[in-house]
Amino acid sequence: MSAETFVKGKTIELRKKHIGPSCKIFFSHDPIKIVKAKGQYMYDEKGRRYLDCINNVAHVGHCHPDVVKAGAQQMELLNTNSRFLHDNLVLYAQRLQATLPDKLSVCYFVNSGSEANDLALRLAWQYSGHKDVITLENAYHGHVSSLIAISPYKFIQLSDTEQIQSVHVIAAFIAESLQSCGGQVIPPPGYFQQVAQHVRQAGGVFIADEVQVGFGRVGTHFWAFQLQGEDFVPDIVTMGKPIGNGHPMSCVVTTKEVAESFMASGIEYFNTFGGNPVSCAIGMAVLDVLEKEDLQGNALRVGRYLTGLLEEQKEKHPLVGDIRCQGLFAGVELVKDRLKLTPATAEAQEVIYRLKEQCILLSADGPHRNVLKLKPPMCFTKEDADLLVGKLDHILTELEEALGLKFHNALSVENESSKRKPTDENGRQHLGGLAHGGGSSQEDPQIAKRIRS
Amino acid sequence: MSAETFVKGKTIELRKKHIGPSCKIFFSHDPIKIVKAKGQYMYDEKGRRYLDCINNVAHVGHCHPDVVKAGAQQMELLNTNSRFLHDNLVLYAQRLQATLPDKLSVCYFVNSGSEANDLALRLAWQYSGHKDVITLENAYHGHVSSLIAISPYKFIQLSDTEQIQSVHVIAAFIAESLQSCGGQVIPPPGYFQQVAQHVRQAGGVFIADEVQVGFGRVGTHFWAFQLQGEDFVPDIVTMGKPIGNGHPMSCVVTTKEVAESFMASGIEYFNTFGGNPVSCAIGMAVLDVLEKEDLQGNALRVGRYLTGLLEEQKEKHPLVGDIRCQGLFAGVELVKDRLKLTPATAEAQEVIYRLKEQCILLSADGPHRNVLKLKPPMCFTKEDADLLVGKLDHILTELEEALGLKFHNALSVENESSKRKPTDENGRQHLGGLAHGGGSSQEDPQIAKRIRS
Ligand SMILES: Cc1ncc(COP(=O)(O)O)c(C=O)c1O
Ligand SMILES: Cc1ncc(COP(=O)(O)O)c(C=O)c1O
Repeated sequence: MSAETFVKGKTIELRKKHIGPSCKIFFSHDPIKIVKAKGQYMYDEKGRRYLDCINNVAHVGHCHPDVVKAGAQQMELLNTNSRFLHDNLVLYAQRLQATLPDKLSVCYFVNSGSEANDLALRLAWQYSGHKDVITLENAYHGHVSSLIAISPYKFIQLSDTEQIQSVHVIAAFIAESLQSCGGQVIPPPGYFQQVAQHVRQAGGVFIADEVQVGFGRVGTHFWAFQLQGEDFVPDIVTMGKPIGNGHPMSCVVTTKEVAESFMASGIEYFNTFGGNPVSCAIGMAVLDVLEKEDLQGNALRVGRYLTGLLEEQKEKHPLVGDIRCQGLFAGVELVKDRLKLTPATAEAQEVIYRLKEQCILLSADGPHRNVLKLKPPMCFTKEDADLLVGKLDHILTELEEALGLKFHNALSVENESSKRKPTDENGRQHLGGLAHGGGSSQEDPQIAKRIRS
Repeated sequence: MSAETFVKGKTIELRKKHIGPSCKIFFSHDPIKIVKAKGQYMYDEKGRRYLDCINNVAHVGHCHPDVVKAGAQQMELLNTNSRFLHDNLVLYAQRLQATLPDKLSVCYFVNSGSEANDLALRLAWQYSGHKDVITLENAYHGHVSSLIAISPYKFIQLSDTEQIQSVHVIAAFIAESLQSCGGQVIPPPGYFQQVAQHVRQAGGVFIADEVQVGFGRVGTHFWAFQLQGEDFVPDIVTMGKPIGNGHPMSCVVTTKEVAESFMASGIEYFNTFGGNPVSCAIGMAVLDVLEKEDLQGNALRVGRYLTGLLEEQKEKHPLVGDIRCQGLFAGVELVKDRLKLTPATAEAQEVIYRLKEQCILLSADGPHRNVLKLKPPMCFTKEDADLLVGKLDHILTELEEALGLKFHNALSVENESSKRKPTDENGRQHLGGLAHGGGSSQEDPQIAKRIRS
């Protein structure tokens, strides 16, 4: 297949005709046509190179040769379902297990983050005997119907009657170990332990969604839930996006107890493609590359460097309200006013479009779509960080000039920040930080156009 | 990766330790370890060759070099999500559309049959404004929670309270175009037209699940719903298994009207891996091979030949109660007694195990697990059919001798067969044929062990 079959206009026309209109595209006013990619770079049909700060799926770098080779070799040899014995399946399960607390020993291989989270719910329902689920504000856990129901990020757009209202006995608490679509929000250490205690007392289980943030991205640890401390072990961990560097695969890992209770329902679990030898070979190659190239270490080092650069931007630019970084997972929250914390939604869009013109790809997220989201491939370098922040600095300066924003407009930022994380009567901290303006997305037509990745 | 890393016993041990116990394996008493496959053959770790009559997923033949090459080349070049423009996505959508009635013009690419059917339900709910779904007895539509709820094949194993009871206003009717897990049951032509009329009058949509039976398998047509006649067009078609010859991918195709109403909900549909360039390249290669090697024609010719051979078996063996064939999708229903139609469940198991010893892989399905299911890769030959039926003949003869079954035990088979398809008061035909013994799976502990593929 040649890199380009149609001229771009024709591709757009055919897409309009044949692809569901609910499937959004980046930069819809002037979408990008990408024909190849390598490492942290993507190339359009004209050969223009883009620095990719969005694709956490291309975890060890786009088209990593080791991963491609593992996939191609196994495709050539055998690709079939898990009803036959195959060493890749058990080898890979063993390797994943080695990255996790011992208790989390049982794997179910599936094909997407959504399949993983749906299965996690089924496991929790069966184990607890209950149905209701606690979910965080602004959470997104996937596109299948059971997950839309527990993803406020999505269902807030539905009418009241379509939303699930009841909260009675708890089957599960589900949360991303670091909230991604909700605006790159980092929970305070120890928070999950407390939640888990309450949930388990009520007979429920704790589900950690690592679909966005797992596999070394946070730098200090392989899994983001480990940021909470050694003593915290979720009952179920769901994985996805980076697990196969783009190959459709994912995994649910749980304890023996939960797995046995699921078994006791008498219903077999069969997933046609889940755990096939090709997916497992690719999964192993990703783990190999992570080790061989010390990409978790790179995420830590480059992440720290990037944080430093971004903190400088915060000092310099009133538009930057907050910086939330953890390894190569970073959020830059833009506000119009640090006192009222008004989300700078339009400005975030402007930044993203201008960066795109400069061949740097970023996205914005959070309930007000005012959080610049950075989750580049793990081979991202300090030079890439310099390039990105340099351009960002320039754009912010221009924007602030146009807006007449100067730093002395922002009063006592330090005092303000202490107000940012109110605790409610149940001791549960609101995690939204600045994102908690109280406004729902319905008030802002922009929000309906959210682009996530 | 070498073909074998562990000795078989170790693989089994590790599987027990690390893979969810709900994930069943074929021939659990003595599972097979498959290390490579080619065409319609699979090879175990000792180099023993098995004729594969099970794997409809390896549609154009295991590890078809054209498909492997297309996948490998695209993996090397680019694999990313559908938020960027890519020609593979629109080219492939165009090619799929060309196989379908014009009205079915809008595609959503997803990763599994379950994701496809869940999305089909979401489309139907949004379009109709209703939630309830009509589903067929013994149907299986996938493993995510929304589908377990409408898959009697699965939920019959749940307690009454866990089952969905209400049938009020209809959002959708969902059926396989030919029922597979339900026991290889072929609906009479014109049946779907009638159903569609009723469903549409009630504001609902017709969903045709082609996950098992699409892509030319039925021989005479590319899609199994086309067996119903030129005038029948479903509102939604879901695809899966054979679409990527084993690669995790699938697709939902619908009309502009349904797609637009889904769009109007304001909720974006994003699927991380769905419609990525690798999946699309692989999907196109499968279509190319189907054409180039005239595999639909082969399914028709070999299917007719196989039907002839199986009909002879029915004449010869009292154990064979019914033959239901359509191209390379065939069901051989085993009964202990043609008068009472008692399902020969244990005998079907015995046949399958003995065929396995002879290196022929088959499975049994249907509510009583007494229907031998044949859905081999589409490159299956007449010689393969001869080999299979020859061995089957031999095994049936031995079994019947051991059971003391002789043909004159079976009375007036022809009269009996006319009773097989009772019509209920709503004019809806029960499609189960002989499979309708009225017994639920709860009565038979064997059923809980059903193996499907
Ligand atoms: C936190 C989280 N969980 C689950 C999912 C669903 O993953 P997938 O699109 O692979 O089904 C996503 C996807 O964006 C996600 O961000
Ligand atoms: C008719 C039918 N629909 C849907 C599915 C679900 O497909 P998957 O396992 O790819 O999710 C299956 C799988 O067996 C099936 O047979």
